[in-house]
Amino acid sequence: MADEKPKGNQPKDDAKKQGKAGGAPGGGGSPDDKKITTRAANYSDWYLDIVQRAGLAENSGVKGCMVIKPTGYALWENMQRAIDGLFKATGHVNAYFPLFIPKSFFQKEEQMAEGFAKECAVVTHYRLRSVDGKIEVDPEAKLEEELIVRPTSETIIWNTYKGWIQSYRDLPLLINQWCNVVRWEMRTRLFLRTAEFLWQEGHTAHATAKEAEEETHRMVEAYRQFAEDWMAMPVLVGPKSEGQKFPGAVYTLCIEAMMQDGKALQAGTSHFLGQNFAKAFDVQFTTEAGTKEFAWATSWGVSTRLIGGLIMTHSDDNGLVVPPRLAPTHVVICPLGKGEAERAPCLAAAEKLAAAIRALPRDDFYGYQPISVKIDNDMKNMPGHRFAEWELRGVPVRVEIGPKDIEKGACVLARRDIPGKDGKTMGVPLDDAPAKIDELLRTIQKNLFDRAKAFRDANLWTANTYDEFKQLIEQPGFVWAHWDGTRATEDKVQEETKATIRCIPFNGPTEPGQCMVTGQPSARRVVFARAY
Amino acid sequence: MADEKPKGNQPKDDAKKQGKAGGAPGGGGSPDDKKITTRAANYSDWYLDIVQRAGLAENSGVKGCMVIKPTGYALWENMQRAIDGLFKATGHVNAYFPLFIPKSFFQKEEQMAEGFAKECAVVTHYRLRSVDGKIEVDPEAKLEEELIVRPTSETIIWNTYKGWIQSYRDLPLLINQWCNVVRWEMRTRLFLRTAEFLWQEGHTAHATAKEAEEETHRMVEAYRQFAEDWMAMPVLVGPKSEGQKFPGAVYTLCIEAMMQDGKALQAGTSHFLGQNFAKAFDVQFTTEAGTKEFAWATSWGVSTRLIGGLIMTHSDDNGLVVPPRLAPTHVVICPLGKGEAERAPCLAAAEKLAAAIRALPRDDFYGYQPISVKIDNDMKNMPGHRFAEWELRGVPVRVEIGPKDIEKGACVLARRDIPGKDGKTMGVPLDDAPAKIDELLRTIQKNLFDRAKAFRDANLWTANTYDEFKQLIEQPGFVWAHWDGTRATEDKVQEETKATIRCIPFNGPTEPGQCMVTGQPSARRVVFARAY
Repeated sequence: MADEKPKGNQPKDDAKKQGKAGGAPGGGGSPDDKKITTRAANYSDWYLDIVQRAGLAENSGVKGCMVIKPTGYALWENMQRAIDGLFKATGHVNAYFPLFIPKSFFQKEEQMAEGFAKECAVVTHYRLRSVDGKIEVDPEAKLEEELIVRPTSETIIWNTYKGWIQSYRDLPLLINQWCNVVRWEMRTRLFLRTAEFLWQEGHTAHATAKEAEEETHRMVEAYRQFAEDWMAMPVLVGPKSEGQKFPGAVYTLCIEAMMQDGKALQAGTSHFLGQNFAKAFDVQFTTEAGTKEFAWATSWGVSTRLIGGLIMTHSDDNGLVVPPRLAPTHVVICPLGKGEAERAPCLAAAEKLAAAIRALPRDDFYGYQPISVKIDNDMKNMPGHRFAEWELRGVPVRVEIGPKDIEKGACVLARRDIPGKDGKTMGVPLDDAPAKIDELLRTIQKNLFDRAKAFRDANLWTANTYDEFKQLIEQPGFVWAHWDGTRATEDKVQEETKATIRCIPFNGPTEPGQCMVTGQPSARRVVFARAY
Repeated sequence: MADEKPKGNQPKDDAKKQGKAGGAPGGGGSPDDKKITTRAANYSDWYLDIVQRAGLAENSGVKGCMVIKPTGYALWENMQRAIDGLFKATGHVNAYFPLFIPKSFFQKEEQMAEGFAKECAVVTHYRLRSVDGKIEVDPEAKLEEELIVRPTSETIIWNTYKGWIQSYRDLPLLINQWCNVVRWEMRTRLFLRTAEFLWQEGHTAHATAKEAEEETHRMVEAYRQFAEDWMAMPVLVGPKSEGQKFPGAVYTLCIEAMMQDGKALQAGTSHFLGQNFAKAFDVQFTTEAGTKEFAWATSWGVSTRLIGGLIMTHSDDNGLVVPPRLAPTHVVICPLGKGEAERAPCLAAAEKLAAAIRALPRDDFYGYQPISVKIDNDMKNMPGHRFAEWELRGVPVRVEIGPKDIEKGACVLARRDIPGKDGKTMGVPLDDAPAKIDELLRTIQKNLFDRAKAFRDANLWTANTYDEFKQLIEQPGFVWAHWDGTRATEDKVQEETKATIRCIPFNGPTEPGQCMVTGQPSARRVVFARAY
């Protein structure tokens, strides 16, 4: 476990490494390239090295916007499939609403407008023209009303729901949208904070506050399940403090994960919006009793920042580590051997094995997709280089088939979560290999979660005084502390320590006490941390 | 077949019916609502009625932008799954590129810039501010360089490829993107022409012209396969004329379908871009021989307009008709009976049957998804109303289970492609029903294609003189005619008859002749039609 705990610097500035255009889309960089930065040397540079070298994303020619490269996008597709399955299993359907939000809609819910105003991209014109061979904005084509590129879609969706909700019979509405959103960020970091990102946003309408609150809880539970069962990323679950909630929400529930550097990542949020948006857009329905009432709302979302969370939960100094349930490629088979005579039987065995693995019955663990197998037939390259490349890319299981293995009708299985000799099983009979590999993939999934949870739990600290807190917060990890429940105290702590209240976990210690800062009564401890 | 052929008006103006906010998202409107417009009465109103009443889409509060409602979006998801499968089977991977395109990128490829300039939404500011409680664009937050909301992504993608392509070893790049795009349209129609729409755009880079041309053909063939094998929509395949090609392409291949009113719908395009974009963005690679060469490009796309095509190919005066391979719901089971005593056994049988259908083995016909079954337990409503509602929504197979059926251990199967008595099979033993339904779904898929093809083929006309052409083009259908190959003639025909050259089909008559307009030599006939 020692190597899971970074000793080094906190990230400071990422801009310096992000600017470079980067390598081939599949992976970028051959194993001959320089090694990636170690986590101990510089966690932030390590992160960007992984993103770049494993071919996940890069900065684009558009300030603050990223290109999600094929391997990164394949991860996102697998995440989408799993999350979408959880939504559908809980009765939700998908729909699509406009990218643009008229300014007048946007300002109808005041808190939200205030919350997002400073980061909105605004469309003001709808035509270009060519003047002397140069393209320019056509001043004649100015929009009467500016359009905001959605930073989130509550307003346009509730404006639409007005037409859909007349009676209690129309409720609940359980709708989700997969889309891109734009929040103009001055300081960006690939996946974690970009001007444009991909996400899903659920927007539901209910006849009662109780139903809406149940929905808010149901969806944060779906996020917990996804984070833990697919991403193998343990999370704390509970409400945000007032200071950290979504602008426009009555309260916000969240899942909060600990990265390997001990910082927190908000990985998903589920908001109980009360009747705020129904009132802003006048969405009233006739109740069963014949009265009129405003509808009750929730919204909830996760985004491509989960990819950043996945990297920072599991990856190591050799490269990316991906939990098998989300891996774009589950297995890579490396036939070995010098010269054609040695190579041919190894390659033939690799192809036979690949076919057998692909033919395993589909099941829920793999989202009813076939196990994805690649054969690395770059047999002229040095085996060590080839293995290092697949480790860098995070393929969970590597199979090696050399001439000596062939003699024994066997192969070697190497697991990505335990690099080096400790993770190798020698002499696995080729006939048994498909079943063994399937089993190993499930074992790796579990091991990644267990390991991440052990790390997280080992880095949960408890502070009883503010001085103690100030010391502990300089260490990696989360700090449990008493807080008086006021915004003023929360702001003071943030100003003085850069730590915020991440979550008031449902499953936390419940003994009352006194606020570490003011000495005022505290109902229970909350979790503070520095966060991404 | 008679009812497949509309006798009535061509669509003229759709705005009048599109404006209304529309009903519940699931379907909109109960069977008690007024009947939908018939195709004979007004094809355009019929189309909009189907879109609205089957719960597919509606206009939004943003001019020109649509809301894709849950049933419409479920159709799109099924289309995406099938199309994406075809892409992946041909070696393509997905990625994601920015929504915004800097103006300077946009103007680098001149033809494309000219082609799209007049319909571009432009972002000029990145912040709002609140002044006296009103939100306004912050004039301090003006972008140095305006950003164009992508109408298509060749420029931003080729700007990115510059960093990815150094050597012939980096080629081919076979990348696709699923995303939203914006083309500012003044006159819109749901699915067929909207300011924002969803699509996929493939962008590939190759070492040789030959490979790029092969790819251009491969992808138009993938589109043909999707259109015919999933949408059950027969298409003509071939190049566009110069006047109709994509701005920036060397040539464009397309699939072109005939709607029930005889008009053409361009359903997908695949462009050979030559070295135009590589030159505009200076994307050169080192060849195997060590020389430098510009990369060769293709791009290809289909969009949510396919949903419009699907509606106008199969639907009838009772409502939506959906080919089973794309149906969000395959089967609806309607238990019948008066009073609780009659209803209970019917409902129990319905639930048992639903479970048996869902448990059928998954296969490629259904995209490895379970067959989707709904039970309509609104048993207090009149059966006729319930059946009409499911017909309106286009569910391919309806199962009726009444008290008399229960006595015989049987049920009634009704197929949506043949409404009324002719499409009903009585007395199907409940135990045999799952297999029979599976078989019937496959039969319906084939029947829809065969019927649409027969209709299309019956409405292909041949004109030998321009006078004859002018008469024929007033009828529904496509017209084969000789053309001298010039833009001038093409423009003249369009101006005088509103017909355009839709396609020069690969599988068309090849005898040479004389242009119907100019009398100049013509290599072969081309297909003219009025188009959506």
